[in-house]
Amino acid sequence: MIPGIRNFRSGFVFALTILGLAVVLGAPALASAPPRIEGLVNLMPVPASVTVVDGRFRVDESLAVARAITPELKGGPKDRAFRAAARFMSRLAGRTGLFLKQDFLASQASSGDGGIRYAFGRPGRLIPNEDESYVLKIEPAAIVLDAKTDIGVLRGFETLLQLLSADEKGYYFPCVTVADKPRFTWRGLLIDVGRHFQPVDVIKRNLDAMAAVKMNVLHFHLTEDQGFRVESKVFPKLHELGSDGMYFTQAQIRDLIDYASDRGIRVMPEFDIPGHSTSWFVAYPEFSSAPGPYAIERKFGVFGPAFNPADERIYPFFDAFFKEMAGLFPDPYLHIGGDEVEGHQWDANPAIQSFKKTHGLADNNALQAYFNGRLLKILTKHGKKMVGWDEIFQTSLPKDIVIRSWRGPKSLIEAAQKGYQGILSNGYYIDLCQPAEAHYLNDPLPADSPLDDSQKALILGGEATMWAELVTPETIDSRIWPRTAAIAERLWSPASVRNVDDMYRRLGPVSAALEELGLLHLKNLDMLLRRLAASPRIKPLKVLAEVVEPLKGYDRHGQTEYTSLSPFTRFVDACAPESMPARKFKTGVDKFLAGRDPLTAEELRTIMMTWRENHALVLPFLASSPALREIEPLSLNLARACEIGIEALGHLTKGEGQPASWVQEKGAVLAEASKPAAHAELAVVKAIGRLVEACGVPAK
Amino acid sequence: MIPGIRNFRSGFVFALTILGLAVVLGAPALASAPPRIEGLVNLMPVPASVTVVDGRFRVDESLAVARAITPELKGGPKDRAFRAAARFMSRLAGRTGLFLKQDFLASQASSGDGGIRYAFGRPGRLIPNEDESYVLKIEPAAIVLDAKTDIGVLRGFETLLQLLSADEKGYYFPCVTVADKPRFTWRGLLIDVGRHFQPVDVIKRNLDAMAAVKMNVLHFHLTEDQGFRVESKVFPKLHELGSDGMYFTQAQIRDLIDYASDRGIRVMPEFDIPGHSTSWFVAYPEFSSAPGPYAIERKFGVFGPAFNPADERIYPFFDAFFKEMAGLFPDPYLHIGGDEVEGHQWDANPAIQSFKKTHGLADNNALQAYFNGRLLKILTKHGKKMVGWDEIFQTSLPKDIVIRSWRGPKSLIEAAQKGYQGILSNGYYIDLCQPAEAHYLNDPLPADSPLDDSQKALILGGEATMWAELVTPETIDSRIWPRTAAIAERLWSPASVRNVDDMYRRLGPVSAALEELGLLHLKNLDMLLRRLAASPRIKPLKVLAEVVEPLKGYDRHGQTEYTSLSPFTRFVDACAPESMPARKFKTGVDKFLAGRDPLTAEELRTIMMTWRENHALVLPFLASSPALREIEPLSLNLARACEIGIEALGHLTKGEGQPASWVQEKGAVLAEASKPAAHAELAVVKAIGRLVEACGVPAK
Repeated sequence: MIPGIRNFRSGFVFALTILGLAVVLGAPALASAPPRIEGLVNLMPVPASVTVVDGRFRVDESLAVARAITPELKGGPKDRAFRAAARFMSRLAGRTGLFLKQDFLASQASSGDGGIRYAFGRPGRLIPNEDESYVLKIEPAAIVLDAKTDIGVLRGFETLLQLLSADEKGYYFPCVTVADKPRFTWRGLLIDVGRHFQPVDVIKRNLDAMAAVKMNVLHFHLTEDQGFRVESKVFPKLHELGSDGMYFTQAQIRDLIDYASDRGIRVMPEFDIPGHSTSWFVAYPEFSSAPGPYAIERKFGVFGPAFNPADERIYPFFDAFFKEMAGLFPDPYLHIGGDEVEGHQWDANPAIQSFKKTHGLADNNALQAYFNGRLLKILTKHGKKMVGWDEIFQTSLPKDIVIRSWRGPKSLIEAAQKGYQGILSNGYYIDLCQPAEAHYLNDPLPADSPLDDSQKALILGGEATMWAELVTPETIDSRIWPRTAAIAERLWSPASVRNVDDMYRRLGPVSAALEELGLLHLKNLDMLLRRLAASPRIKPLKVLAEVVEPLKGYDRHGQTEYTSLSPFTRFVDACAPESMPARKFKTGVDKFLAGRDPLTAEELRTIMMTWRENHALVLPFLASSPALREIEPLSLNLARACEIGIEALGHLTKGEGQPASWVQEKGAVLAEASKPAAHAELAVVKAIGRLVEACGVPAK
Repeated sequence: MIPGIRNFRSGFVFALTILGLAVVLGAPALASAPPRIEGLVNLMPVPASVTVVDGRFRVDESLAVARAITPELKGGPKDRAFRAAARFMSRLAGRTGLFLKQDFLASQASSGDGGIRYAFGRPGRLIPNEDESYVLKIEPAAIVLDAKTDIGVLRGFETLLQLLSADEKGYYFPCVTVADKPRFTWRGLLIDVGRHFQPVDVIKRNLDAMAAVKMNVLHFHLTEDQGFRVESKVFPKLHELGSDGMYFTQAQIRDLIDYASDRGIRVMPEFDIPGHSTSWFVAYPEFSSAPGPYAIERKFGVFGPAFNPADERIYPFFDAFFKEMAGLFPDPYLHIGGDEVEGHQWDANPAIQSFKKTHGLADNNALQAYFNGRLLKILTKHGKKMVGWDEIFQTSLPKDIVIRSWRGPKSLIEAAQKGYQGILSNGYYIDLCQPAEAHYLNDPLPADSPLDDSQKALILGGEATMWAELVTPETIDSRIWPRTAAIAERLWSPASVRNVDDMYRRLGPVSAALEELGLLHLKNLDMLLRRLAASPRIKPLKVLAEVVEPLKGYDRHGQTEYTSLSPFTRFVDACAPESMPARKFKTGVDKFLAGRDPLTAEELRTIMMTWRENHALVLPFLASSPALREIEPLSLNLARACEIGIEALGHLTKGEGQPASWVQEKGAVLAEASKPAAHAELAVVKAIGRLVEACGVPAK
């Protein structure tokens, strides 16, 4: 606690659950009045506890931020919390347009009463299980942010900013007490810079976005068949020959690590071996399991090239390489990949077969386990703990390794039961363009988990994974955000926070707020349409794009052979992975079918009319832009489906049933209309189908 | 010329002037047909010569780019032209959505016939007067790009990309021959990173934009009262204490120089001394002319602190400092600023007064000349030629210095007449938010120049100047682009290219094309409105913003005291410096007043109705967003002015004159409506005023 801060106002309190939050409501007179939740609507992730009381802290140009000076804390612009406070003030000024009088870049300690006062006990360390808790108390005359570590202060500032509200008098913060801490200690985002390189500015803005939703691990997937993306001074041929010139210099890596550290985010590097390693062999074909030469892979998939575990030369190489990388990356963990070793090169290499026999290695799994064992010694020697995908799991490994599961919760459970730590990735594959809901309800520790408490403690958290076959610096933000904010909430908030509708309601404001950090997830969708149309006026294209989603799962790869040089600038790339207008439409259909209320019917009719008429407006674009011609089926099918939807809605509002043949006939048209085109699909056809089906059910 | 390329098709040609271009039209049968200029409409800057012939080069997935291999050119991905060709292919794929089959990142030389073949004689040097010419020949079956240097190849690829066209069959390049070279050798953009720091990604995307319009000098204004922005390893306190942590590391500087070099752009650093130097004195107060201590300046203006030319200690300091910077920046020129030495510190310092007497220095100008003379020796010693603002000019300096004029053409003429080289900045101050037209018609060598030919050769070119009092990384792009493209054309294209309407017509497509390079000039205007509105739906705000311009010249500074910490996120920052809808409206008013045609009248009426009704739609935003409340007068005044404009238009279409009292009364309301609000002003009121005035002129 900070000295000199008034005690929190007393008054009787009662519990109330709003928005899936445990909200404790103050102010006795309000027992029957609606709860005061203005600012709370934007909180994401939902804090562990929020207590709301009466009152508002007014924000004006005199607002100042002050750090409590304690003997341990000299305070100054070089400290993480100081810089975080400065960014907070700058973002607050940006949102409110206020000319804040404080020179918050230089002199936070000098301000007096009536502002924001923050304090912490010690600098936080960037390691798992570090304390990130904080208590934020907003009273009408003062705001106090108190934390064990400066990382807790960072988390608290994000919460405070989300609480910004406005009324007729201006901007304010509602009076609340937030006592918050994360449920899981490992809340990660994997960014794959191997398959498509993502430059420094992409990583930085995504680090900012991660911090905004309280994520704390950047899993930096640095090497792939398609590229070796980090400078090695010891083996410079690796990046020189393996990257097409697209790699991070060590200075850039250090800059990124500093930037992440400033935001309370760890940077864990991954060097994926022994498979997924073609790009290494461009420089060092002799380390692979089959003769070279090798070229940087352009296609995507699981490829044959793999390191040769039977070749003793690779171990000194890895020793020197990981020594260098262990020095570059301060994180205690280093990820060695280990996934999807395709095996053909090993099977075809007589020396490897003989090696297996000599060493009693029954199969390729055993060979990889041998390889991992050797690597473990190297990593341990250089002070790193090993992380790897499911494949690395073997009970001969020490207990401080971490299993990162892409296969599913079962493998995590199995590992935990044997005493191993784990992280869940399965279910958080954001590259598959699934709805936020699917990720949101995917819990690393579901209610029915068979684990006991000590085993549960081994489940460290989870990681969203941005695999990069289909993303470029122009599109990556829209593939990560805002859906990853739902994953961030799953990993931070109490397990009981599971209200999907409420999550979606908050996802909109959170998504919008990310723009102030430079994220392009909203801006670039329109921009891509402008480029394709070669015109600034793209409204009909946008109307269509807003109800179209990219093909999900791995279906898009079935449409054509993408390479790392393909354009990701087509219509499908200008469509968000999850259509919010389509979700709203589906919700409307549900509501209408449940109650048949005419107001909802009218809303549905109006929007379907807009979508139907849109096709005529799209056609001129197709004439002038060859690149857009592939969307004609989508646009036409939307019109056709809406024609049917409008008809069905008409029958339903009049209470007219339709024969099964009608339902079947219209259903067939809809089935046709739901077929993919331009690597994408319409997101509203199923809901229209429900209107059609309802026509076949005799009215009650 | 490249071996193996077919001769250019013969056929009689005749000259025709379109778009201010000297277009030579081929195809005998077309003598009376309209000229074939599809792709040419987007060319900016206009090339020195364009010859159009019949035919189209079709663009499909088989398109490949090949470099002519000559003994001098080994060719490979490390070469500038190779990389430029790869970027060309990538951008082409991005615009067309074509999955180009060539692995253009790795193997340009291996492609066969029927594609794009480029060649050059030698690598270009990044110095003034280097050859940037190129010849681009597009025939139905092949494209040949031929240049003296690889820099010429870069310029040619930009032209080729601007020629991309589409028809019912797909994308194509029209058959033309472009023989092009710049009029001026110094086509610069100054970016001031001192007053507001601009990180690496801002500089990189602006370098890309510069290359797209064939500019070739980044004038990097690195130090100011408000910040010292480059790492010094020799004097680390400079950046550590003088930058708030916002500076370029030397690694980042080298990266930027490489990036610029890859685009054929020089990077000339500026260290502004002896004035504009407060940030230096935070670290070294002893070098200033008055006792410290000093703090980083937050306000804007001309400040007192200046180096003490009488203190012998500063010269070894500059010697060591410029030695370091001369090693960091390879450009032959180094800019020492020299502008706006305020003089009070010098006047108040007895040691300086006594020094002046001892050395016979009559005034502060003489003292600065002495300082410059000392600096010149230091720069010369370290292999750099000196550039400075007007103030440095003195005829005792050697002839290879360059005068960069912010004062005006007269000082350039004077310098040239005395044999000194000069660059024009005056008239290219893009921070003043003036229309592109004003910059476009500002010629470094106007037709009435009194200079003779040898003196004219001393006028090297010009520089747009992005002074950064009022810009942040979020807004800087919209302050630079697209208006700077008009300056780029002034400096590249023949002097005869001066058609303002045609410039504006091409400015739109050029502006749009910059988005593919990551420029945020279009995207961020909407984004800022979304932030202020805290909503994704901002149409009425956009309607208003599109006819509002920031106050021009230095008027915005008169509205409030801006500092480097002020928010630049208000409505005015979401308004482009020049309103294109307002320009269109003005053009419409001119057209209507000239011919009174009813169609134009109807267009004007419709748009004024939209603007008038917009106010009611704006009001709800003001209720929910305190930061937007300042725009109420702008919105209301737009409605009021349009009310009057609609009335005036009604009178004019009916041929009804109005008494002088009516004109005066309405004029008074318009004068009121044209007053600034929210640091901005309506851009359509004057044109509405012309409608009112026309009502007072008796109908003929």
